[in-house]
Amino acid sequence: MDRRAEFKRWKAQCLSKADFSRKGCVDEDVVEIVQLLNGREQFFTTSSCAGRIILLEQGMDSLEVQKQNCCWLLVSHKPCVKDDVIVALKKANGDAILKFEPLVLHVQCRQLQDAQILHSVAIDSGFRNSGITVGKRGKTMLAVRSTHGLEVPLSHKGKLMVTEEYIDFLLKIANHKMEENKKRIERFYNCLQLALEKETTTTNSHPKEKIKEKNNSYKKKSNPGKAHDKCVTEENDKVLENDDDDDPGISVTIFPEDY
Amino acid sequence: MDRRAEFKRWKAQCLSKADFSRKGCVDEDVVEIVQLLNGREQFFTTSSCAGRIILLEQGMDSLEVQKQNCCWLLVSHKPCVKDDVIVALKKANGDAILKFEPLVLHVQCRQLQDAQILHSVAIDSGFRNSGITVGKRGKTMLAVRSTHGLEVPLSHKGKLMVTEEYIDFLLKIANHKMEENKKRIERFYNCLQLALEKETTTTNSHPKEKIKEKNNSYKKKSNPGKAHDKCVTEENDKVLENDDDDDPGISVTIFPEDY
Repeated sequence: MDRRAEFKRWKAQCLSKADFSRKGCVDEDVVEIVQLLNGREQFFTTSSCAGRIILLEQGMDSLEVQKQNCCWLLVSHKPCVKDDVIVALKKANGDAILKFEPLVLHVQCRQLQDAQILHSVAIDSGFRNSGITVGKRGKTMLAVRSTHGLEVPLSHKGKLMVTEEYIDFLLKIANHKMEENKKRIERFYNCLQLALEKETTTTNSHPKEKIKEKNNSYKKKSNPGKAHDKCVTEENDKVLENDDDDDPGISVTIFPEDY
Repeated sequence: MDRRAEFKRWKAQCLSKADFSRKGCVDEDVVEIVQLLNGREQFFTTSSCAGRIILLEQGMDSLEVQKQNCCWLLVSHKPCVKDDVIVALKKANGDAILKFEPLVLHVQCRQLQDAQILHSVAIDSGFRNSGITVGKRGKTMLAVRSTHGLEVPLSHKGKLMVTEEYIDFLLKIANHKMEENKKRIERFYNCLQLALEKETTTTNSHPKEKIKEKNNSYKKKSNPGKAHDKCVTEENDKVLENDDDDDPGISVTIFPEDY
């Protein structure tokens, strides 16, 4: 079977299976992206989480980081208030940790070129920790990830280590990150639509035109005069995150010019 | 110029340049890995940070997440004690955030196959957020990243929001994560050595042998009888992290068999 047919078969097989997540369905905020991707023959999504605030409990001691002993006290895909956390914390007698986790999306791609397009969209939308995985036999996946998290230990052996005022302050930050994450998801959707439209146009155009067109797309510095580049906003650069390459604290040698 | 010669030229150019990081040199814990990679013709490192505890100050309000207003109050590549943070916090009149950031390493690779080998080594060593980037003209980079972070807001508009006891508790966790990160770096170095040795052996062996050998390497489930697979320890799986695919909270459809 050729690669194209093989991918098609896998996709059909994957999408016909039940959703094995605890929730059992795709998160509301990411449904449009999942549908857009699964509607294209070169992609299918294998896992997704739109972003969430979670309160985890780890065994009896967070210094013994055993995954087996971890349970969830609270999971919310919507903004939370202090009382949600206070109530959930009552169930904890180990070490409770509050986390904000941004969008995570895994997409299987027919070929490397498809993953590259999706990767550009992800980076341009602010998901800077995204990356491609290529398996030994060529299975190509894109993981969409952000650096925009939060991970705060709250209690130790059942004892609350912070004040209620602090939890309130923390949730304001977590909710704000959730909003920012939502904006990025919207940006991702818009960028993706443009990229896929462009892809369709170039696929149908003359081969020479196609090459020319390809070389012009996904410029890091967008030309404000070009409507199709508008998804690359400067907003991305204003948000504080672990932007590794810009970070003066990381040992850096000059990159050769982009090729 | 062919790709091989082009890569060689870029590498020479990159490694001859000064280190533009604030520190001006490669972190001690990652020197061996950097040297091992740069000693191979198919790789060169472009940035690295072994892992660190940092105290950042963000403008006057962490809800206005402007990167421009961010400054560093403390950076440590070694374990910290409470007083280090207390002293540094005295300089803050905005919003201070304590972070633990694990190893970050960017490696430019001659071809995709080289990045795949390095990616396997990274994943097997516990750096699960690692990923490949392929530029429009084929520039291939591997980013080594872990999920093993910590990000805790400590003060708001200059006011400390937590107790000293909490800071002490937090640093125990951060220091523990630093230790775990160090173990993973060692694991990465050992795995990398084995992978590169194997690569050399297979490159020099008969082509048919080479293919056979390649298909046997980097098994997820290692065969305990085989010495060359010993770098894949079960330890990795015990550590609590955002292991996206295992997470029952993430909408998941069945992966087609690895190919």
